[in-house]
Amino acid sequence: MHRTKVRIVEDALDANDTIARANRADFDRAGVTVVNLMSAPGAGKTALLERVAGDVPGARVGVLEGDVQGSMDAERLAALHVPVTQLNTEPSFGGECHLDANMVRSALDALPLQEIDLLVIENVGNLVCPAEFKVGEDVRVMVSSVTEGEDKPLKYPLMFRTCDLVLVNKIDLLPHLDYDLDRFLYNLDQVNPGAQRLLVSARTGDGIEAWRQWLADLAARTGERALL
Amino acid sequence: MHRTKVRIVEDALDANDTIARANRADFDRAGVTVVNLMSAPGAGKTALLERVAGDVPGARVGVLEGDVQGSMDAERLAALHVPVTQLNTEPSFGGECHLDANMVRSALDALPLQEIDLLVIENVGNLVCPAEFKVGEDVRVMVSSVTEGEDKPLKYPLMFRTCDLVLVNKIDLLPHLDYDLDRFLYNLDQVNPGAQRLLVSARTGDGIEAWRQWLADLAARTGERALL
Repeated sequence: MHRTKVRIVEDALDANDTIARANRADFDRAGVTVVNLMSAPGAGKTALLERVAGDVPGARVGVLEGDVQGSMDAERLAALHVPVTQLNTEPSFGGECHLDANMVRSALDALPLQEIDLLVIENVGNLVCPAEFKVGEDVRVMVSSVTEGEDKPLKYPLMFRTCDLVLVNKIDLLPHLDYDLDRFLYNLDQVNPGAQRLLVSARTGDGIEAWRQWLADLAARTGERALL
Repeated sequence: MHRTKVRIVEDALDANDTIARANRADFDRAGVTVVNLMSAPGAGKTALLERVAGDVPGARVGVLEGDVQGSMDAERLAALHVPVTQLNTEPSFGGECHLDANMVRSALDALPLQEIDLLVIENVGNLVCPAEFKVGEDVRVMVSSVTEGEDKPLKYPLMFRTCDLVLVNKIDLLPHLDYDLDRFLYNLDQVNPGAQRLLVSARTGDGIEAWRQWLADLAARTGERALL
């Protein structure tokens, strides 16, 4: 029973990877760099996008907004005149707690790929399953809010292990928390020493220029690769 | 394809409910009241348990600690000399992002049911899937931290709709946040007007006596029912 279940899960992930590669090939052909943005609920993904999406030097940004239901975050971002496409996992995809490659594929026709250089896919707020499913991204960025505690890299290692950049958000609250930033970074190093990290506050703007530049550099690098 | 998937999911949830009823019957026979405690990662479930688990008037508390992997929270609680049983979804249950009735059933023999009156099952940190799976609980309690934002009841309605009590945690941070508590409570009323709510801070102790008393009342009520 157990072995059967593991095999079913492995088959599903293999099928997902195949579709993710097809998505990525389509994004490459369109010259679009793709970021899979993940975090726990309420860590600040949308707020960090609001800060930069309308103004990344050299790159036109679009957003694919993943939620179980509703479109509140998409409306926040649309107010910035950034092209936003909503993708709900409820009801079409069984209310899933994550995006997968097939869901993103179903949204491809709705994405204005010719008008953007950088697509940010804002995943469902969840530290477990989103890490298991590639969606066709070039890089993975995750947001870890300091209010969540220092132990999160050790409790959700797959998520932290598979990301390229960790945005440590809400640092304006550090004076009011019993949070040991060095301990968090130490824990992060235990599971992913190569992960880049930026300390930011979507609320005060601290670190936001570095986040904006990180996206600009990413888009420029991928653009160069496309010219080779 | 879609209809097949929905049917598979419905069948799985039916099977889960059957096992959940069996769990609940076993807990009833042992005279143990069961709380399913849920939240996003880092909202403060363990911290709120640390505050009360060792001292609920009239009720001996035990904890079943659910995590994807590791036992950090269980170790924190064991330091309070509260009986704690660890349940990991990785590797035995495919790294699932929630507990289900079968997982809890697998832990029954390890639980000291004769030595406790109140069992708190601390679920995996996640606002989506834990809400879908009954585990045999009498009541559902969820923690929503004010750092997560006011919109969470609208974004994760099933979780908020199915809980009996919402612990609004980290209220000591309210002066430092752009968080509208009235708006949160209004949003909660939209999806679950009958939910009880307590404002608490695991850090400062604000509201903790009310949380302790809520658990004591719950255990007393269930105890009376058992005598009928």
